[in-house]
Amino acid sequence: MNKPNRQHFNPILKITPIGGVGEIGSNMTLLESEHESIVIDCGILFPDEEVFDLKYLIPNFDYFESEPSKIIITHGHQDHIGAVSHFVERFPDAEIYASPFSAELIRNQFKERRIRKHINIYKEDDFFEFEPFSIHPIHVNHSIPETYGMLIKHNANKLAAFFISDFKIDEQSPYERPFDFEKLIRLSKDCKERLLLADSTNILNPSHSLSENDLIKDIEEIVAQTEQRTYITLFSSNIHRIQTIVDACNKFGKDLTFVGRSIYKYTEAAVKTNQLKHLQNVFLPDDKARGQEKNLVVLLTGCQGDFFGALRRLAKNELTGLNGNPGDKVVFSSKVIPGNETNVYNIYNELTKKGYDIISARDKEIHASGHACAKEIKILTEKFQPTHYIPIHGETFFLKRHCELIKEEFPKIKTYFMNNFSTIQVDEKLDVELVVREELEPILIHGDYLKIDREKISERRKMATKGQIFVSVKQEKKYLNFKISMKGLPKEAEDQLDNLRIHLKSLVKVNSDEEKIEETVRVNSKRFIAQVTGYRPEVLTHIIS
Amino acid sequence: MNKPNRQHFNPILKITPIGGVGEIGSNMTLLESEHESIVIDCGILFPDEEVFDLKYLIPNFDYFESEPSKIIITHGHQDHIGAVSHFVERFPDAEIYASPFSAELIRNQFKERRIRKHINIYKEDDFFEFEPFSIHPIHVNHSIPETYGMLIKHNANKLAAFFISDFKIDEQSPYERPFDFEKLIRLSKDCKERLLLADSTNILNPSHSLSENDLIKDIEEIVAQTEQRTYITLFSSNIHRIQTIVDACNKFGKDLTFVGRSIYKYTEAAVKTNQLKHLQNVFLPDDKARGQEKNLVVLLTGCQGDFFGALRRLAKNELTGLNGNPGDKVVFSSKVIPGNETNVYNIYNELTKKGYDIISARDKEIHASGHACAKEIKILTEKFQPTHYIPIHGETFFLKRHCELIKEEFPKIKTYFMNNFSTIQVDEKLDVELVVREELEPILIHGDYLKIDREKISERRKMATKGQIFVSVKQEKKYLNFKISMKGLPKEAEDQLDNLRIHLKSLVKVNSDEEKIEETVRVNSKRFIAQVTGYRPEVLTHIIS
Repeated sequence: MNKPNRQHFNPILKITPIGGVGEIGSNMTLLESEHESIVIDCGILFPDEEVFDLKYLIPNFDYFESEPSKIIITHGHQDHIGAVSHFVERFPDAEIYASPFSAELIRNQFKERRIRKHINIYKEDDFFEFEPFSIHPIHVNHSIPETYGMLIKHNANKLAAFFISDFKIDEQSPYERPFDFEKLIRLSKDCKERLLLADSTNILNPSHSLSENDLIKDIEEIVAQTEQRTYITLFSSNIHRIQTIVDACNKFGKDLTFVGRSIYKYTEAAVKTNQLKHLQNVFLPDDKARGQEKNLVVLLTGCQGDFFGALRRLAKNELTGLNGNPGDKVVFSSKVIPGNETNVYNIYNELTKKGYDIISARDKEIHASGHACAKEIKILTEKFQPTHYIPIHGETFFLKRHCELIKEEFPKIKTYFMNNFSTIQVDEKLDVELVVREELEPILIHGDYLKIDREKISERRKMATKGQIFVSVKQEKKYLNFKISMKGLPKEAEDQLDNLRIHLKSLVKVNSDEEKIEETVRVNSKRFIAQVTGYRPEVLTHIIS
Repeated sequence: MNKPNRQHFNPILKITPIGGVGEIGSNMTLLESEHESIVIDCGILFPDEEVFDLKYLIPNFDYFESEPSKIIITHGHQDHIGAVSHFVERFPDAEIYASPFSAELIRNQFKERRIRKHINIYKEDDFFEFEPFSIHPIHVNHSIPETYGMLIKHNANKLAAFFISDFKIDEQSPYERPFDFEKLIRLSKDCKERLLLADSTNILNPSHSLSENDLIKDIEEIVAQTEQRTYITLFSSNIHRIQTIVDACNKFGKDLTFVGRSIYKYTEAAVKTNQLKHLQNVFLPDDKARGQEKNLVVLLTGCQGDFFGALRRLAKNELTGLNGNPGDKVVFSSKVIPGNETNVYNIYNELTKKGYDIISARDKEIHASGHACAKEIKILTEKFQPTHYIPIHGETFFLKRHCELIKEEFPKIKTYFMNNFSTIQVDEKLDVELVVREELEPILIHGDYLKIDREKISERRKMATKGQIFVSVKQEKKYLNFKISMKGLPKEAEDQLDNLRIHLKSLVKVNSDEEKIEETVRVNSKRFIAQVTGYRPEVLTHIIS
């Protein structure tokens, strides 16, 4: 891929999303001043198709002309921190800054990948120098503790850009203060121009997200009624939700245990950084919980029907000592991420067959989204009063709808519909310009954290779609010997193995050149099998002499 | 698969779903009296994973002990008629009965597959002998014309079973009469026991489905505003919706054209059987429509983001003469079928990038479901007053919820939670029993309408997941020659090709037996590549001498 040609009009600030704009995942944004470049977040994207066993996709770092000085993490979700280890491999000198809880999660990632790299901790009142700007973390609400928007503020108040990829407004949360509008307004109000770059995830929802506080009643009711075992599945990173469950267990004298690696990982980090409290009063390690049928709440991973999640193992009766009985409740304190509907319905079906009662957010008020709906977007816009608005963090369609909403409700604000690798830049006269560039494709990561090229996935796709024939031809002085195997072909094709061999033998001439033999075998094998199956399988030929 | 053991308690009626109960699709039900067996519907199921290029799944006919005398079709949706050609191949003597429009659709299927078989037409007032029962079609509302429930009525009024897999209640439809409760009640009211087998598709929705009539206002508004071209995508079988669009085009003087094979197929069948009217007044064949930019409505297939649908071709600018301009509307008069969310969002994104404005049923009242919501289920239950209730047509989870709803609202009715291949049977004393059996797996259909075994799909899955190595070993008297190829493996593996050959050469001994060589090659290739990639690819070895 060739480097995009960069235009210059003496910008004092350039903001370029490297991931997350036009897709939900792999969030990464490059900030450039005249003197420095800083990256915000570096996350992963989960692939559409499970069958190719891809680990994830990461942003394409080929855009970078030089090594950024820092990477600042807004919060600890995988789509914001999951690719930091890949970033460190490419840019070993960049300093990493994260809040205590997020830093703990990144440390775990580094441990798994055996990467040694110091992580700097920032606190809410810290700020980052970024001449002639400073970058201030602004506390926002979300579905994981310690989430910040980043206010990039010109030191002479020319300009403030508020970058806030994931947020909601939760005025009632028992676990964290509301969105810190006071700090945001205080720091930005004297700035001449104000840019807002904000989350589009829930833009199609016209209402206001629920508060974590709204869920306590129904979750307490479920936990209070726990006589048989009750299973609850949720996003492991949702520490405040887990706090609600821990508190309910404390209140009603229930025990709590966990199944699934990621719940342990997130709760350990949360306890260590004081984000999750009173767990020790109710927690039973799983070896002690096994066999306890009454007054036990079991928290499980796998709320998206994930293939390796604990919930799927429950559905298959594979949780030795912790399998449930007919009538036990399985509570989904989560939503279905678009694309996972089939997996989630499959697990609903499997659990139903085993006699479990499913309770989802359709039945009780037990899930609140972590992303702002349209009403919250309007509140934020009214508070911050941007002069320029750039929707980020969402599918292309969401970004467009986000622009339309702002145009309709705030016609004076200029909106920008942008995609990854395009740049919003502000020049010295404070003119704002969108420089549109071709997008670079994200990188596929597979196996032992290796990059795998799209053409290799395309080879796999062809084998999966059409099946594979493998032909070996041994060329002797006076005759040819053929060996043929088929993989993934129907019986009607397999039945033709001998006939195909005879057919090929009649067509290929002894002492032809190898390329010629290969072509004859490929073309004629495809044609021969197409006659019985209606499609042309893949053919690979070895000529060995 | 071995035949399930069938219990007997002198049943006068046995009802066994062969497909559609525990899944949405491949609907097929076997009715057995002492003298005769009759099948209702024979549909296809679409597979979860697109990558294996499966055409569809069909019900497993291995359950049948003898050839049924008839197959009766309730309506023309693919999940009710799509496997009739496979049924005919297996049971060539069974008579087929369908309404005029459905018969036309089945005839098209037979033409495509070059099957010659007569289809008998039934009308609403006809009935089928099924000693000691008769089977009466009852007109119901749905999202395709000519949809019937089947009332299986004992001739001495002992028993009535109402089988109604797809339905809704539409009291306001301009295109068809409301659900024929009068006939249903008249025929069944004197029966001692009443069984209801009913649709579970929308059971999670507590409300009432919209009427087709409710959509006319917004669809007319969209068509009236058509100055640039307007694109509308919908389910091609939804003839009443197409009638609303045809009528709106007539009313506002717009032209109408179609893109996509299935819209032509369904509308031709509908015009021929008088289910679609006034089309000729507005219709432009696509060669005349090409290039017309104004006052043109283009109906397109592909509302689910289907890979080969016309909508995807629009998004790729491949509709010569009918590609749109930025600002043109693309209207989704459809819903997203669960499992298709990713495809639909992808097409939203692609269309947005091309500058199209998307209007979906979120924005305007332009789609009504064809399936009864919970309120309609209650209305039907109150009208028919069943003594026994068996939810059908839905995911296992939906069936369970359907049972729970009936238990809660009508505690006197006995409910049965059943799956495919289990039997509801009624004996002479009118006792009702559920005989539970193991399910048989549906059959995968691939390529030229061939059955393909699950193990072959599993071979494809392994190649797609791990990649494939092919090794040819030529065994000479004194040495071995190796040729190795890789498909779908990352660069790190490809770089090891020479080393792998040297490694294998050092391990395999000349004149070993072939099995031994094959095993050594397989085990060591996997291990060798696992060291660089972190996973074990598939290995296939040819030994040729």
